[in-house]
This record gives sequence, C-alpha cells and structure tokens, in this order.
Amino acid sequence: MSEAVSERTCLETRLRQIGRERYHDKHPFHQMLHSGGCTMDQVRAWVINRYYYQSRIPMKDAAFLSRVDDPMLRRAWRSRIGDHDGTAEQEGGIVRWLKLAEAVGLDPAYVASTRGVIPAVRFAVDAYVRYVREQSLLQAIASSLTELFAPSIHKQRIAGLLEHYAFATPAAIDYFRHRLEEAPRDVAFALQWVLEHANTPAEQDAAIAALVFKMDVLWAQLDAIWGGYIDPGHIPPGAWQPSEGVIL
Amino acid sequence: MSEAVSERTCLETRLRQIGRERYHDKHPFHQMLHSGGCTMDQVRAWVINRYYYQSRIPMKDAAFLSRVDDPMLRRAWRSRIGDHDGTAEQEGGIVRWLKLAEAVGLDPAYVASTRGVIPAVRFAVDAYVRYVREQSLLQAIASSLTELFAPSIHKQRIAGLLEHYAFATPAAIDYFRHRLEEAPRDVAFALQWVLEHANTPAEQDAAIAALVFKMDVLWAQLDAIWGGYIDPGHIPPGAWQPSEGVIL
Repeated sequence: MSEAVSERTCLETRLRQIGRERYHDKHPFHQMLHSGGCTMDQVRAWVINRYYYQSRIPMKDAAFLSRVDDPMLRRAWRSRIGDHDGTAEQEGGIVRWLKLAEAVGLDPAYVASTRGVIPAVRFAVDAYVRYVREQSLLQAIASSLTELFAPSIHKQRIAGLLEHYAFATPAAIDYFRHRLEEAPRDVAFALQWVLEHANTPAEQDAAIAALVFKMDVLWAQLDAIWGGYIDPGHIPPGAWQPSEGVIL
Repeated sequence: MSEAVSERTCLETRLRQIGRERYHDKHPFHQMLHSGGCTMDQVRAWVINRYYYQSRIPMKDAAFLSRVDDPMLRRAWRSRIGDHDGTAEQEGGIVRWLKLAEAVGLDPAYVASTRGVIPAVRFAVDAYVRYVREQSLLQAIASSLTELFAPSIHKQRIAGLLEHYAFATPAAIDYFRHRLEEAPRDVAFALQWVLEHANTPAEQDAAIAALVFKMDVLWAQLDAIWGGYIDPGHIPPGAWQPSEGVIL
C-alpha cells in the first residue's frame, strides 16, 4: 500500500471513529424518540426545532457554492439544494418535512415561520451556516460528513416511528426515505474530495475538527430540545408552548 | 391608477432611465466590437476578461441564495446557477463561453485559469459578488436588473459579430443566443420582486443605487479592456499578453 493510500485510509478511519463517538444517534433523545417513549408534544418540539435545521441546509450549501470557483465542483454540489428546495420534478425535503409537521398535528405555516424555535437551536444552526461561509473549503466539505452516519439513524427512525406512533404513516415519514437515497450519494462525493485534498497532517486535523464541529451542532440541538421539553422541561422564553400551532 | 401602482410605474421608469444613461451598450468598446473595428487580439482580450465576469455570476447567485430564507424565492432564483454551470440536460453558459474562446483562437484551459485577467476587471467583478453577499436582498436583486437591457445588446452583438468577423459562426456565439432566452425570464421575475418590495422612498433609492452600482461594475470592465488593449494600450503587469494562450 503506498504512503498516500495508507494516509487516506487512516484519515477515513479517524473520521469514522468520530461518528462512533459523537454522532447524535447516541443522544438519549433519539433513543427515546425511536423507542416510542416521546409524548406527541415532545415529537412536535422535535419537528418544530429540526425544521430550522432543515430550512438552513440549502442556505449552507449555497454559501458553499458561492465560494467555489470550479464550475464542476459547483455542479456536483448543486443537486443538494434541489434535494431540499425541490425541483420541477419533485417537491423536495422542506415540503416533505412540513408534511411530517402536519402529520403530527402542527400547522405547517406555523412550523415554516420558525417562530417557536429554541434560541439555542437557532444559534447552533446559524453557527453551521457561518462556519461553511467562513472556513476553508476543505473544512466546509468535511463538516458535511455527518451524512456518513445518517443512513443508519434514518433506518432506525423509520422503523421506530412506524412501530410506535399512530401518526407515522409511510407518507408522513417520506422525508426519511428520500434521505436514505440522497445522503449516500452526496457523502460518497464529499468523502472522496476530503480524502484527496487533506494531504498534510494540518489539513487532516482541520478535516477532523470540522467533523467534530458539525457533530456538536447536531448534538446541541437535541440537548436544547431535551432541556426544554423533557428534563428539566424548562421551555426558554419565546420557544414553542405546546398549545401553539396545533391543528389536531 | 392607485397610488401604489403609480409609485411602481415611477420606479420602473427611473430604473429604465438608468439603463438609457449608463448601460455598457453605450461604451465605445462595444460600438467598436459590434461594428467590426476590433483586431483579433482585442476580441481575445475581451473574451478573456469577460470570462472572469461569467465565471463569477454563479458564485454571486449562490451568495444570494445563501441569504434567502424563503424556499420559494430560492427555488425561483436557483435556475440561474444551472444556466451558467450547466445541468444534466445542457452544458451551460460557462462551457459556451469557452467555445467562444476556442473560436477566437484561445486555449480554453488558459481562459478558464483566469490568469490573464486585468486586475481592475477582477476588482470590479469581485466587488459585485461582495455586494450581493453583503447588501440588502432588495439591493442584491435590484443589482441584477442590468439584464433588462441585455437582450438589445445581445441582438446587436450577434448581428455585428456574424457580419464582421470570420470566427463568428452560429456555434461560436451560441452563448449569446441562449442568453436571449434566459435573461428576459430572469429579469421579469427580478423586476416584479423589486417593484413589489421597494415601497418606501428610501427603498426605492436603494434599488436605484444598486442598479447604478451594477452599471459601474460592467462599465469598469470595458474601461480596463480599452485602456489595456486599445488606447493607450498599456497592458497592466500580469494581464494577458497577446501571444499567451493562443492556439491558432
């Protein structure tokens, strides 16, 4: 094995190790959600807050595109925006998430307004968009590699929601089925790019740091939901109160 | 006519007046180019420098998208990036511009490297990308309204190039034919948005200032080409020397 190949394998191993240690499938909120332990209001709190993350992902990807001067790299990345915002052919992830909102008894217009989002969730997500706008292209791409670990959590979620919650019809959770197809395609490209461009130890450490940063962004959102709606259940000023925006 | 409608008509009149006064169809370079007065090296200087503008437009549009939190506005704007970077169905404006480069005897890889771009052109174009990244969404959209005046110059250019230059086959100047279709669709949306969102006198003045700014960005590029390659013909250090990148 050549030295370059060996170094790439080593970087990939380090990246995957971060997933095993820090990906938010380890967060107790997800274990509670997927095993049927959440009340409908706790599910709603998750849907409302996670919408904010969904809604900012296309802005994050556009911020990335705006810094790329290679038309081919832009073109390879651009489909991510269509996956979320929709295309002439398909509605896109944001519309699908709003269908989930409706299925859990929330007014989609209330969710789309992002009015009830916990400020700590907003800070974490906004930090991600800013990170991609400001850090190196290598770090911007490496921060997307949480998607390496997404198919596994999406499969658990689809199975867990269908098993434990009456709202969870296949149509209601269609968002996750689509991500099962989209995320692996995207992350294969991103991982390859990172492995090819992180050549020095400093670049490899920067890629690792970027992935850790993104893990923190995901984890912080669940901590905020946990604190506000589970334990201790102190809803921060301005965040969603369980009667707001409920239509069922 | 209601007051709101009357104010919109007035703003549109002001915007169109700026085009009549400041659009770069008035620049002597374009008059020289379209009437067959340019040498091949002067045409090449234009193709090399204008490529830099073309290549930054998708980055400008992505910078805009990255600031828009309305998925529908993002979706309406996103096709602009595909028009330039290409889609699965069509090659896009950047590839078409590189075909023009080849037709005028330039190595497309040299043009795509942007190595020979006049620094003043780079400054002007970079200022445009930064403007769209930093100013209000209204100003970002209003700065795109130079496209109101593009079909007329593209028609003159297509006719003038075909009449006066041997390189100008329909295939070589395909870029401009495509822009004849794309620009009117884009600008109709942008004009409507500006007229609907510039409601106060301050907002209307901001829209006007944005369009003037963009006119300056276009004009400055031609001034730099004129100074470097026509009169006085002092090529700035680092800018294209007429032997570089020529393949014919």
